[in-house]
Amino acid sequence: MPPIRYDVVDMSEAELEAEQQLYGGLADSVRALADASLRTTVPGAVVEEVTEEIEKLAARLAGDQIEDSFGVSLTTSGTVRAYGNTVVGLRNPVAPPLRIQRSGAGRAWAEFRLGALYEGPPGMVHGGVAALVLDQVLGEAAADGGSPGMTGTLTLRYVANTPLGACGAAAWIDRVEGVKTIVKGELRDGEGTTTVEAEGIFILPRWAREAMVEREERPPRFE
Amino acid sequence: MPPIRYDVVDMSEAELEAEQQLYGGLADSVRALADASLRTTVPGAVVEEVTEEIEKLAARLAGDQIEDSFGVSLTTSGTVRAYGNTVVGLRNPVAPPLRIQRSGAGRAWAEFRLGALYEGPPGMVHGGVAALVLDQVLGEAAADGGSPGMTGTLTLRYVANTPLGACGAAAWIDRVEGVKTIVKGELRDGEGTTTVEAEGIFILPRWAREAMVEREERPPRFE
Repeated sequence: MPPIRYDVVDMSEAELEAEQQLYGGLADSVRALADASLRTTVPGAVVEEVTEEIEKLAARLAGDQIEDSFGVSLTTSGTVRAYGNTVVGLRNPVAPPLRIQRSGAGRAWAEFRLGALYEGPPGMVHGGVAALVLDQVLGEAAADGGSPGMTGTLTLRYVANTPLGACGAAAWIDRVEGVKTIVKGELRDGEGTTTVEAEGIFILPRWAREAMVEREERPPRFE
Repeated sequence: MPPIRYDVVDMSEAELEAEQQLYGGLADSVRALADASLRTTVPGAVVEEVTEEIEKLAARLAGDQIEDSFGVSLTTSGTVRAYGNTVVGLRNPVAPPLRIQRSGAGRAWAEFRLGALYEGPPGMVHGGVAALVLDQVLGEAAADGGSPGMTGTLTLRYVANTPLGACGAAAWIDRVEGVKTIVKGELRDGEGTTTVEAEGIFILPRWAREAMVEREERPPRFE
């Protein structure tokens, strides 16, 4: 497995905030459009007109763009710019996005809303979306405890359906065994009932361990 | 767990095709916009202008819409309309969407592309996205074998990173044990290498089993 590259971007806190406001606003508008495009019942002629307008706007934005994916970069002040991340990415309209909080001692959690775009069985959160969210929250708990890593295994136990709407997720380090960090977590519905239980094993790749030893430091977060 | 409700919609094949073309086109345009919004490097003033235009289009579509989520309905000819599904939903811009094929004997597979919107580690598919996709493909394999069910447990083993780009997924029924169907599957990268292995246990809920006995028939697919 080749090393993963993190660019370091020289930007001030004010520049970072302005960037997040600008592109966060754009992503929010696309999220609202995605939700409306799924639920709309306007006449077909209007749908066709709107589709054409959307195509024009997409072409306008794509007129100048990065070649591949957004990647993950670090600002000189240490903020992680994982804007393309499918769960937490500020600039990614597919992401709800989650704002994950951390205890500083191996615990991570978030409150969020999963609407019509995250449906599996009628009116319920897609089981795979529960897995998507929990993978990220468990990984952040591992990183928060000083044991970042790539997901090795992830096991999900679905104990009840999760209705669409308000949700919560939390994860905590259960134990560390050498290069493996075992993390547990859960998804909760709007009433606080646990609906999905998760256990993940996060493993620090060899190249990252070697880089840590060389630089006598901890590696950057993976997210 | 309350029964899940499926509406039956009376529509011809021609109406279904027209509907899929209209709304599929809309969703495709929003997918392109989402990708462009993540990767764009146009000037900030243009981003602000485009954001305003998108907000107007979203409001236009939302002017008349269904109240909650899309749900899952069946047409009188037996086609499943799961347009809001996060993995396969034709009308859901969050969905890649996957077009899953079935053998008729407990096997399901799909070839698809995961671009910048599905990123976790830089240049790589998010581990949770792999889980999201596999949950759906495994569930469809269970249903294809005549043993539909809700996900009970899902276990994922990440054996290598999956680069963004062309991907494949496949799943097959390993064995059936009473109301439990055990399904195995895998995600593959563009070169056909297995990157994630999955095992899922799908369980037919009690209300569906009772409905089957009452109606002397097999329950509808869950997706």
